[in-house]
Amino acid sequence: MDGTTRVEEALSGAIERALTAAVSSVATPGAPPRLAAALRYAVFPGGARIRPRLCLAVACSCGDDEPGAADAAACALEFLHCASLVHDDLPCFDDAPLRRGKPSVHRAFGERLAVLTGDALIVLAFQTLARGLATNPARLASLMMIVARSVGMPTGIVAGQARECEPSADLAQYQREKTGALFAAATMAGAAAAGVDPGPWRTLGEKLGEAFQVADDLHDATGDEAALGKPVGRDVALDRPSAVRSLGVEGAIAHLNQLVSEAAQSIPPCPGADGLKELIIMETARFLPRELWQRAA
Amino acid sequence: MDGTTRVEEALSGAIERALTAAVSSVATPGAPPRLAAALRYAVFPGGARIRPRLCLAVACSCGDDEPGAADAAACALEFLHCASLVHDDLPCFDDAPLRRGKPSVHRAFGERLAVLTGDALIVLAFQTLARGLATNPARLASLMMIVARSVGMPTGIVAGQARECEPSADLAQYQREKTGALFAAATMAGAAAAGVDPGPWRTLGEKLGEAFQVADDLHDATGDEAALGKPVGRDVALDRPSAVRSLGVEGAIAHLNQLVSEAAQSIPPCPGADGLKELIIMETARFLPRELWQRAA
Repeated sequence: MDGTTRVEEALSGAIERALTAAVSSVATPGAPPRLAAALRYAVFPGGARIRPRLCLAVACSCGDDEPGAADAAACALEFLHCASLVHDDLPCFDDAPLRRGKPSVHRAFGERLAVLTGDALIVLAFQTLARGLATNPARLASLMMIVARSVGMPTGIVAGQARECEPSADLAQYQREKTGALFAAATMAGAAAAGVDPGPWRTLGEKLGEAFQVADDLHDATGDEAALGKPVGRDVALDRPSAVRSLGVEGAIAHLNQLVSEAAQSIPPCPGADGLKELIIMETARFLPRELWQRAA
Repeated sequence: MDGTTRVEEALSGAIERALTAAVSSVATPGAPPRLAAALRYAVFPGGARIRPRLCLAVACSCGDDEPGAADAAACALEFLHCASLVHDDLPCFDDAPLRRGKPSVHRAFGERLAVLTGDALIVLAFQTLARGLATNPARLASLMMIVARSVGMPTGIVAGQARECEPSADLAQYQREKTGALFAAATMAGAAAAGVDPGPWRTLGEKLGEAFQVADDLHDATGDEAALGKPVGRDVALDRPSAVRSLGVEGAIAHLNQLVSEAAQSIPPCPGADGLKELIIMETARFLPRELWQRAA
């Protein structure tokens, strides 16, 4: 096992432990049992945990003098991501039957519990931040603002999702809000949790978020439903904006490669810059369908 | 105009100004226009603003050395209340056609924007706290925990709403979570914003929350749809637990009077205790349908 793989495995373990602890703090025996079950179902087993991994990787690269703060930020971002998946899957939006290879939350628990599970996850995100930063409140306000901006109005995930309800939407803006905002929050929160100025870390997250969105569009256009654990071909079926619809498959792959290169070059000076660059290139390989990655390499 | 009325009017003015500033900070020209409009529609014009009034009144009674913190806490509670109304009105829950005398958010803007408006309001609540406490982070974590507990799992508003999805629900617990939790947060946050130990202020909020829920049940059972601005008779129609269904109208009125009396007696020692007691009794008169209030007096 090489060094980068060990870092990867350590990140995964830390994230799952922190998520489990945070969920267990509210999904207690006193909670409504079906809501508690739906909340656990929405978070575990997870997807690739790309956003919290990115947050912790940046915090480590910046020295990570306060691991509890970085863990809390990573959990908050993952809870907000899960909340957006649960609400986006609702019948009034995508009416998605599958998510992460199992029935979506509203198919498994009903629409009412799916609405409430999303709400509870948003609250849990901020509660986890408050709990994790209780002994270091000076960093709490900064982390809260980074996280809240990435999910709320005027340009966070919720705003991005609302662009689908407007008469017309700009693809770049839509993707920046729907995906890029949470990736930018991941890199900025990782820096802020380690006591480092988050501003210079925004570009890294934005570029990776754009790259991830392009990869997601490629999965939707070319992927295999069984391997992905969710339906494919939805962008065309729902007439949603998509990089593949705008640029074609080859154009989308070229765009993705350009974005990852720009991301790696944007890493600000920090103690772990070299390792972070290596990790990012390795993680990017997870984004693409394997067959396309070989074509792109 | 007597002293208490002047205090009441000052509270109202402060609350509307703070809510307007917080909404305007996110419903900017860059936001999706329909989501921004739906968010404003969900907050303005408001109802009685009982929770933020209670929060500010407690903060004032405790000395209110940090008015920006109390304003932020009051706004956060009102945004969370509005979010719960928007989501509770959704077709999958009450499918309510009217709220505050006008079409509910999903009737006016569609179901998708109603889901997103609720989500955006939850985020805005925490964002407003972070912004209002940026210069006093020591109080931020405490306020965050109070507010998050009142709305999330295991025993906040979301949990209370989820009791409707369980096979059976205990009326007292349901009301404590659905209504009492946010009232308890109002009194505790008012104290915490003023730098005072919030623990002793919980009982006041819980008792007032119970009283308000009983009054709401009386409105639903005996009220006038035009005067209330929302449908009546919903508890029976939707087979929901209700104090009137359990105790009858006279029994519910007696219970309410007992709760208000216990609330007034529970006020902890503080510089403004006498004025607060007077204000609470005056505010309680707003809870009940006028005709019932005269019978109860």
